[in-house]
Amino acid sequence: MEPAGSISLLALAGVPLVQRGDDLVDLLAAALRTSGQALRHGDVLVVAQKIVSKSEGRRVRLADVVPSPRAIELASLTGKDARLVELVLSESSEVVRHARDVLIVEHRLGFVMANAGVDQSNIEDGDQWALLLPVDPDESCRRLRACIQERWDVDVAVVINDSHGRAFRNGVVGVSIGAAGLPALLDLRGEPDLFGRQLRITQVGHADEIAAAASLVMGQAGDGVPMVLCRGLRPPSRDGSARELVRRKQMDLFR
Amino acid sequence: MEPAGSISLLALAGVPLVQRGDDLVDLLAAALRTSGQALRHGDVLVVAQKIVSKSEGRRVRLADVVPSPRAIELASLTGKDARLVELVLSESSEVVRHARDVLIVEHRLGFVMANAGVDQSNIEDGDQWALLLPVDPDESCRRLRACIQERWDVDVAVVINDSHGRAFRNGVVGVSIGAAGLPALLDLRGEPDLFGRQLRITQVGHADEIAAAASLVMGQAGDGVPMVLCRGLRPPSRDGSARELVRRKQMDLFR
Repeated sequence: MEPAGSISLLALAGVPLVQRGDDLVDLLAAALRTSGQALRHGDVLVVAQKIVSKSEGRRVRLADVVPSPRAIELASLTGKDARLVELVLSESSEVVRHARDVLIVEHRLGFVMANAGVDQSNIEDGDQWALLLPVDPDESCRRLRACIQERWDVDVAVVINDSHGRAFRNGVVGVSIGAAGLPALLDLRGEPDLFGRQLRITQVGHADEIAAAASLVMGQAGDGVPMVLCRGLRPPSRDGSARELVRRKQMDLFR
Repeated sequence: MEPAGSISLLALAGVPLVQRGDDLVDLLAAALRTSGQALRHGDVLVVAQKIVSKSEGRRVRLADVVPSPRAIELASLTGKDARLVELVLSESSEVVRHARDVLIVEHRLGFVMANAGVDQSNIEDGDQWALLLPVDPDESCRRLRACIQERWDVDVAVVINDSHGRAFRNGVVGVSIGAAGLPALLDLRGEPDLFGRQLRITQVGHADEIAAAASLVMGQAGDGVPMVLCRGLRPPSRDGSARELVRRKQMDLFR
């Protein structure tokens, strides 16, 4: 007999270092060739935030950043570079918490996260440059998905993942900051459980679980595997976006 | 050429409904036979919290629970059954937040979670019974791991997963509440990034990412696939436990 179900996560070899203006679908084509893989209907392509940001030219030279008085104050409270803090503030709608070495904000996209995702790791000249999140990660996913559909005539969902810290738990995990072609949130309200009782847990962070699974194979330290195919998931019940994963401030007990 | 790496997640068919006193290694043996699978060195076996709790007899009849005044008060504030609240309190070291329909506590194991994991879904007679978390999920993992080693002479890591809500994000995701045979937290401090710069993100919630990946195949609604094999991960660098994932209260900005 067969297993009750199986999923595979394939890290695509051969994605080159990404430069501003690179077309992600061209990079994907190269990686598929190198990896000896072809896309299939129902695959979910998970792309690391970093290469989406790079391709969109979201690299900023720190020397070009002039920190505001508020950034200078927060830099002093957190021990961070005031130009970095200025970038964080420019990407944020609200500072949620700050402490020594910690700056947690609400990103303009709604995600509560450290440093608004402004990052200096895994980029060239990381001491002088910083990388911001993509302008609109859901739109980046929709665009890439449409290009894939056009080029290979397959229906593939796309997720952009990033590594976020969490309240209450140590360690970062992969989460979805962009999604297209699948529901980010699976709504199980009304479905019966094993014994016909209505399920208490009603919504599953589906795209986040996909993002975390992809992070497992991407690795974190210099592996440079920024594209992963997730294969074997049930066909998506609807289209969606990572905005579904953002809990509104009024609904959150920890804001 | 090959992909740069791949992981597979196999949901094991044929795990029977679990009763108090059932030996999980016997259930695993039955599921492996039904699924036509054999364990391999380096596999991670992910087991759903629910069947571990059931096998340990952690089912409690609500009629046997006498709510304390504090439980009655919290029941009135949250709109929950006072006997359920009493069970939650008996499993908790602290109430972290409460609101209508919401009771978030620090479980005695340290996890900040809703209802201390006390659950009425997917158990027989869910209206009259509730299921508590395993007494010591790390120890349950160690025990199961040792039994597997003895029975099949393979070195397999074990993770117990559960579905938790998160601050700031909608939807529950799989997390690890028990682990043995692998690090729950991967420490990347000191490892260089792609460009030789020291990594800023230093710790990865490895067991949580495995738990989330397994949740993807387990499904949530009546699928009844409580055992998943995760195959293809790099050999674990050390033994560990899910306690590593608990952030100490003093270190958390959201407590």
